[in-house]
Amino acid sequence: MPPPDIRFCRRCGAGTVQRVPAGEDRERAVCPACDYVDYVNPTNVVGTVPTWGQDREIVLLCRRAIEPRKGLWTLPAGFLEVGETIAEGAERETREEAGARVEMGPLFSILDVVTARQVHLFFLARLRDVDLHPGPETIENRLFALDDIPWDELAFRTVRHTLECFVSDRDAGAFGLHTGTIH
Amino acid sequence: MPPPDIRFCRRCGAGTVQRVPAGEDRERAVCPACDYVDYVNPTNVVGTVPTWGQDREIVLLCRRAIEPRKGLWTLPAGFLEVGETIAEGAERETREEAGARVEMGPLFSILDVVTARQVHLFFLARLRDVDLHPGPETIENRLFALDDIPWDELAFRTVRHTLECFVSDRDAGAFGLHTGTIH
Repeated sequence: MPPPDIRFCRRCGAGTVQRVPAGEDRERAVCPACDYVDYVNPTNVVGTVPTWGQDREIVLLCRRAIEPRKGLWTLPAGFLEVGETIAEGAERETREEAGARVEMGPLFSILDVVTARQVHLFFLARLRDVDLHPGPETIENRLFALDDIPWDELAFRTVRHTLECFVSDRDAGAFGLHTGTIH
Repeated sequence: MPPPDIRFCRRCGAGTVQRVPAGEDRERAVCPACDYVDYVNPTNVVGTVPTWGQDREIVLLCRRAIEPRKGLWTLPAGFLEVGETIAEGAERETREEAGARVEMGPLFSILDVVTARQVHLFFLARLRDVDLHPGPETIENRLFALDDIPWDELAFRTVRHTLECFVSDRDAGAFGLHTGTIH
């Protein structure tokens, strides 16, 4: 995926040029007027695997009210914001998208989504209650027994992979950290 | 840390305004001419703990040739770039800063540096050889026995914390994943 369309300097408004800045080895959008370099780097998407039940036998999924993948099921997740830790961001997204209060657990998956310029990070989490309120980005919350996860209606490959790891680890009786690349 | 000075639209060059975009809940730099929203999110810094010896009894550190913290010792690390996985980025930084070829190991630490708007991720790595060549950002490479790590001359708190976890895990005989927040 190409970097976003950068044609003007964010700082001074002059037109930018694509060139390799001094001391670097790759092209960036550089401002010839004020020398500002507009770096574009991958962003983090943070979320949770919110479960219910002592043995984590039920998982909360959200049906997306917005594009992309409107109508499909996802784990609550979104972009990490300035001013928060990855765990705080994951908890916030869970609250915003599902109206769910969770007790945060360990980091569970870190997946590189290179073409989307993203890194996805999911934490295990336990729902504190099932008083759930879908946010504006969610059509519907639903609690799924693991056997009933709608595998063919999941919104994103990182969600599928994370849920596959979750089911597998739960069957094995131990949750680990999963890394990988989504191509 | 405030977001970077954004005063103009990267896409159309018009002056931006700080406001809450429709459907969101926090202020962003928004272009009133073309509606572009200039999102600012935390970035990832990726690096390695490069070791030598079967029992990882020696660690490679780099003395920084550039600011910030010029002259102090660091683990090789730098910003994750578009087009690479976090492991590829960590390996690239190790090659660029230390001229070191490594066999990548597992992810070892993930540290939120909230005030710097960064997440630091370090992997364990084994040096393939000790034919090392400092890059332009490095004054000097040095192999340190763990007892000789220059604790008072380390460049960054995430480097210190990662090395502390490394020494502690090695003493305990098992390497885990370490998460935390640097305040």
